[in-house]
Amino acid sequence: MSSRPSERAAAESAMAPGNDRELRADARRNRERVLRTAQQLFAAEGLGISLDEIARRAGVGPGTVHRHFPTKQALYLAVAIDQLRQLVAEGEALARTDDPAALFTFLASMMASGAENAAVKSALAAAEFDLRSAAPSVAADLTRQVAGLLDRAHSAGVVRHDLAVDEVMALVAGAFAAIRHADVENNRARSAHIAQIIVDGLRPQPRL
Amino acid sequence: MSSRPSERAAAESAMAPGNDRELRADARRNRERVLRTAQQLFAAEGLGISLDEIARRAGVGPGTVHRHFPTKQALYLAVAIDQLRQLVAEGEALARTDDPAALFTFLASMMASGAENAAVKSALAAAEFDLRSAAPSVAADLTRQVAGLLDRAHSAGVVRHDLAVDEVMALVAGAFAAIRHADVENNRARSAHIAQIIVDGLRPQPRL
Repeated sequence: MSSRPSERAAAESAMAPGNDRELRADARRNRERVLRTAQQLFAAEGLGISLDEIARRAGVGPGTVHRHFPTKQALYLAVAIDQLRQLVAEGEALARTDDPAALFTFLASMMASGAENAAVKSALAAAEFDLRSAAPSVAADLTRQVAGLLDRAHSAGVVRHDLAVDEVMALVAGAFAAIRHADVENNRARSAHIAQIIVDGLRPQPRL
Repeated sequence: MSSRPSERAAAESAMAPGNDRELRADARRNRERVLRTAQQLFAAEGLGISLDEIARRAGVGPGTVHRHFPTKQALYLAVAIDQLRQLVAEGEALARTDDPAALFTFLASMMASGAENAAVKSALAAAEFDLRSAAPSVAADLTRQVAGLLDRAHSAGVVRHDLAVDEVMALVAGAFAAIRHADVENNRARSAHIAQIIVDGLRPQPRL
């Protein structure tokens, strides 16, 4: 059954939003798949891996990767922001529990995520990218999650009484810097130990 | 009483080493005076101060400053190394005491010195100068002082048992990074508080 041109146009027009949405959802899924694949490959094999190889391993065409991420630098930044988003989602899940020490679970995740993405973060730092200015809303979301969990930890008395949220964020950054200084980014046990020493300083302190 | 030319030449020759030594000692004193003045002025007034103004305040000619330090960068590096030398001297003095907790006194000095020289250290870091490679012997001396005081603290049980000297050095660097991240380099109370949290993590930890 054939339809008149005007009818076909109307039908296409009516379908278009749905198709657009599907295309957009598809593009979003592809972008996400590239990001997660890139993140895993950077962590496992270093930053030397090519955009084409990342496309191949993510099961998308090279054009898809190059369209979303014209440069390696753009991909590093997107991977780092994606990791922040995953952390924010984890913070939201922790906020829904009633664990008084959820702050420490969250800090452990932040440290582990940072350690896993040490190479990406170093590349961004070397190019003087600051995530707080590159992705202010995600960075603010993360700080808000930490603030909520810190309040709860204060109420339960499981954290030192004189600790502010800005200090927690600064100390997480300090832990990464210490891990880089000790040159143990690729040694999970030794980097976790440095992070642990800093986290121990956040616990309620005995009077000396 | 006049002397023959050959005698005069011999006398001058005999004096020359002494004169040289005096000149060298004089140049060394001037260099040191410039460094201490520069360090104080950088800390109090920031890095914007000119080499000529530093010369004036140190009471030496501008030529003296420019001869020793052709660039601001060279002066930053010399100031930072001079600070390390002062710390090493303090570590030697602490090693001669029998205070079991001298490590913590020394860490407080390292943190205070670093905080006071935050601007200089930031300028060096921005130019990718690493003191460990620019002045390896002074950096090694400092690590050796910390190692000695850490051994003593371990023997006295005043430090966590699982702490190694490389971790202490990394955590000092981490403290400076945390202070920069919190943007409190110029707030003595707030930067000291961040340093304190990290130092508290070095104390013997209760089992949880």
